[in-house]
Amino acid sequence: MRLVRSVADLRALLKPLWNEGKRIGFVPTMGYLHEGHAALVRQSASRCDVTVVSIFVNPTQFAPNEDFAKYPRDLERDQALCLEAGADVLFLPEVAEMYPTGFQTHVEPGRLAEPLCGAFRPGHFRGVATVVAKLLAMVQPDLAFFGQKDFQQTVVVRRMVRDLNLPVDVVVIPTIREEDGLAMSSRNSYLSDDERERARCLSQGLFAAEEAFRHGERDPEQITTLARQAMAGADRLQYLELVDAQTLEPIQGPLDRTAALCVAAYVGATRLIDNVVLAPTVGEAGLNVSLSPTHGD
Amino acid sequence: MRLVRSVADLRALLKPLWNEGKRIGFVPTMGYLHEGHAALVRQSASRCDVTVVSIFVNPTQFAPNEDFAKYPRDLERDQALCLEAGADVLFLPEVAEMYPTGFQTHVEPGRLAEPLCGAFRPGHFRGVATVVAKLLAMVQPDLAFFGQKDFQQTVVVRRMVRDLNLPVDVVVIPTIREEDGLAMSSRNSYLSDDERERARCLSQGLFAAEEAFRHGERDPEQITTLARQAMAGADRLQYLELVDAQTLEPIQGPLDRTAALCVAAYVGATRLIDNVVLAPTVGEAGLNVSLSPTHGD
Repeated sequence: MRLVRSVADLRALLKPLWNEGKRIGFVPTMGYLHEGHAALVRQSASRCDVTVVSIFVNPTQFAPNEDFAKYPRDLERDQALCLEAGADVLFLPEVAEMYPTGFQTHVEPGRLAEPLCGAFRPGHFRGVATVVAKLLAMVQPDLAFFGQKDFQQTVVVRRMVRDLNLPVDVVVIPTIREEDGLAMSSRNSYLSDDERERARCLSQGLFAAEEAFRHGERDPEQITTLARQAMAGADRLQYLELVDAQTLEPIQGPLDRTAALCVAAYVGATRLIDNVVLAPTVGEAGLNVSLSPTHGD
Repeated sequence: MRLVRSVADLRALLKPLWNEGKRIGFVPTMGYLHEGHAALVRQSASRCDVTVVSIFVNPTQFAPNEDFAKYPRDLERDQALCLEAGADVLFLPEVAEMYPTGFQTHVEPGRLAEPLCGAFRPGHFRGVATVVAKLLAMVQPDLAFFGQKDFQQTVVVRRMVRDLNLPVDVVVIPTIREEDGLAMSSRNSYLSDDERERARCLSQGLFAAEEAFRHGERDPEQITTLARQAMAGADRLQYLELVDAQTLEPIQGPLDRTAALCVAAYVGATRLIDNVVLAPTVGEAGLNVSLSPTHGD
């Protein structure tokens, strides 16, 4: 596995691979990798000739009051995980090269960036869209892999890829969870033992809603209430919303299309997010959202 | 020369060329082509294996009160000009494919889009940056050619290419002029005989300023005043500004770096723009802006 720190070195390394028509997979991360990231890397390694992982804690997707400075970092462990999962290139760009003096062009997502996390993290998805666009232009992958845990991010990135005609397929991989259901996240490392114990209520709430849905519950109010009741262990729910999986608009009336139940909550000082996708069977709903890869066009 | 109307057909046509490592040149236009465009196409044809010209009157770079609906169109003549100038592919995308339902992601340029035309054409450079980013992603050229007549556009596009790490070299070609000095523009076709006669005062003003500069004038006020006096034939100057050629900020104090004297003016109902670049010799100024190609990184 090659470590690369500059864009020029990355391009030099990838150029012969582009020219040979190698299938390149890309997994953009902020590091402090866990089994969720490993699943993305493994998926890429199994489907592509070359897998590039980037680690870049992107300052522009953190609001001023957020945890950029204390975001956990452990390059040595990350390297081992990437190697084990099958990465070929580990790209570690510097902030100064990503955002040089005079930098001023941004990719601005539209209304998909407004609800849910977008309502509470001003500028977050602009930062995400911009850095992902930059990384995609650097790596020029055939496939790019994202985790479903960051559901709104996957929707925003897919939309960006389609709107800007980026020549890449976006692949979304299901959330990987701890044994008790907690969604894997680098931020789980912030949790005290007590908080860690209480944090499982989020996935439990989502699973309760999912279970009710599987048994035929279609009332958004009922589904959301079930989840909320199970989430009492969190210190504060920032949002808990059942939204259309494509438009991210709140589901009004009976659930008749693919939806995502999305939560953001504080457990102690740590903000956690999670979601489940609730998809009526094809026979039941006219419309069904595929979570499988869609091409850039 | 091949005519292509869909992104899928364009990609299918270009794919073998990408794979063979052919050098691709790209000239994005809004059609109603003139000798200025021909110069771009010829330059591309001379430097690249394959030249792609796009014609797309981009609605998002026109403000609601502007001339989108009446923007001149003449595909037959455009085809002949492209063929004669050496284009290999003429790409004619449809508005519905460029901006399908749900389209919402934009490339937002920063402060370089604020002065000059940006101050009078709200959203214009956002529209330009977005459509150029889309077209570059579709064509994936090695070189992209722009005319210096749209000076601020070249600065905004260069900045976008650098900021988003787009793998393309931006090449800016000097403005092509009518015999009497008027900068070639598709919008010149709007001018009545009388207006056409008066329109030449814009380039005459710029040339007068350039002449004074060549003879040692370095006072921005003097340079601008000279130009303004010669431009009395226009019905209204929207702006006439001497700006730093890199930052587009007004030149304060003696002209000691490369600057652009930029004008936008109405002649009758027609809005025309033009500019000259005033570059102190290398010995004279510490800093010198190159108008030659710069790589995306």
